[in-house]
Amino acid sequence: MKYYILTLFPEMIEDALNTSILGRAKNAGAISFEAVNIRDYTLDKHKKVDDYPYGGGAGMVMQAQPIYDAYKAICEKAGHKVHCIYLTPQGQLFKQQNAKELALKEDICLLCGHYEGIDERVLEEIVDEYYSIGDYVLTGGELPSLVMIDAISRMVPGVLTNSESGEDESLENNLLEYPQYSRPETWNERKVPPILLSGDHAKVDAWRKEQSILRTKERRPDLYAKYLESNVDK
Amino acid sequence: MKYYILTLFPEMIEDALNTSILGRAKNAGAISFEAVNIRDYTLDKHKKVDDYPYGGGAGMVMQAQPIYDAYKAICEKAGHKVHCIYLTPQGQLFKQQNAKELALKEDICLLCGHYEGIDERVLEEIVDEYYSIGDYVLTGGELPSLVMIDAISRMVPGVLTNSESGEDESLENNLLEYPQYSRPETWNERKVPPILLSGDHAKVDAWRKEQSILRTKERRPDLYAKYLESNVDK
Repeated sequence: MKYYILTLFPEMIEDALNTSILGRAKNAGAISFEAVNIRDYTLDKHKKVDDYPYGGGAGMVMQAQPIYDAYKAICEKAGHKVHCIYLTPQGQLFKQQNAKELALKEDICLLCGHYEGIDERVLEEIVDEYYSIGDYVLTGGELPSLVMIDAISRMVPGVLTNSESGEDESLENNLLEYPQYSRPETWNERKVPPILLSGDHAKVDAWRKEQSILRTKERRPDLYAKYLESNVDK
Repeated sequence: MKYYILTLFPEMIEDALNTSILGRAKNAGAISFEAVNIRDYTLDKHKKVDDYPYGGGAGMVMQAQPIYDAYKAICEKAGHKVHCIYLTPQGQLFKQQNAKELALKEDICLLCGHYEGIDERVLEEIVDEYYSIGDYVLTGGELPSLVMIDAISRMVPGVLTNSESGEDESLENNLLEYPQYSRPETWNERKVPPILLSGDHAKVDAWRKEQSILRTKERRPDLYAKYLESNVDK
């Protein structure tokens, strides 16, 4: 999987992608990144990439030309139209299922906006999908891009080791994860639930499933409703 | 606003927070950050911070002691119990309204998990709120922490300049933003909608409102339903 990131802050992307599990996956060749600085493509003699919005209002709007030319350069390099995702609160909510599907692609281009957004015309021209990572407003598209890259990359074969277990079922069946405990058995006068020390795998599994259901019901009634819907036959 | 970030990857946090608008806000004194390395607090002679989960299963679980001691050190330094947020898919969904409310606090501690999570007992001991930034699984809590810091900081007075307009109404009234356009008037044979060039502010506002409604209806029927609910009187 290759990620192209169209951004005004390539150093922010590069720093983050060189750490942790993603840095290791990159070094192992499972994924690669190229942060492309939109500013490098502006034809403006002052290297400007934004201007006032038509119709008035606060803030600046990123202009079409530099983004379009930067994206065209990426497609020429790749030899095909690279699937282009624009990160915006106006997009569809990104979910685990999307991460799985996008992980099957050969390459993806993530377009990071700033200020009051991007000229609508270039979005119409190049964007294949609009995604939002959640119902909150951020200062730019870089963090959402990193979030999507992280979620997608976990699903790319070879990125997680077995002990990191990409196959955890979090959210997949609309249930939250059960609580986890590790050594020591007693910490701060709190004991590990005895069933986890029983060695009875069937009982442990049943307890964990029950905890997942209880927790989902309590913390995320919306997910719990979906879980019930998909289990009507049981 | 001061953020304490409990993490195994402090350099990832620090790099990201020094760029863009957040770096500028930090330099201006509106916000400050302290990334605390959990590993610095382990009493294990090999500096280990995780162990196998009781009850079996893939992955490792972060142990209670190093996290507890790191958090206690933060509270001692701050002189009070610092509001502690754990970033986890098991939390409530983080929304713009939460960003606004959290922006009023003096300080916040963000606890970043890794691997298969954190020993439940230390969470019960120190965590005040559980948040998820969305229904997807990430390799760790660092990116969600950065996302929350970004969303919250935008709402802290003095972080955004007027021209960046923290007062945009995105998501606040459950409507998505209208499309934006900037120079030139014609780009790639695409024209700016003439109404935006009319100079008639009332008409521009009406058009933008209409576009917001259309877009929300089309892209986010869930938000559109909420918008309709909150406007039944109109």
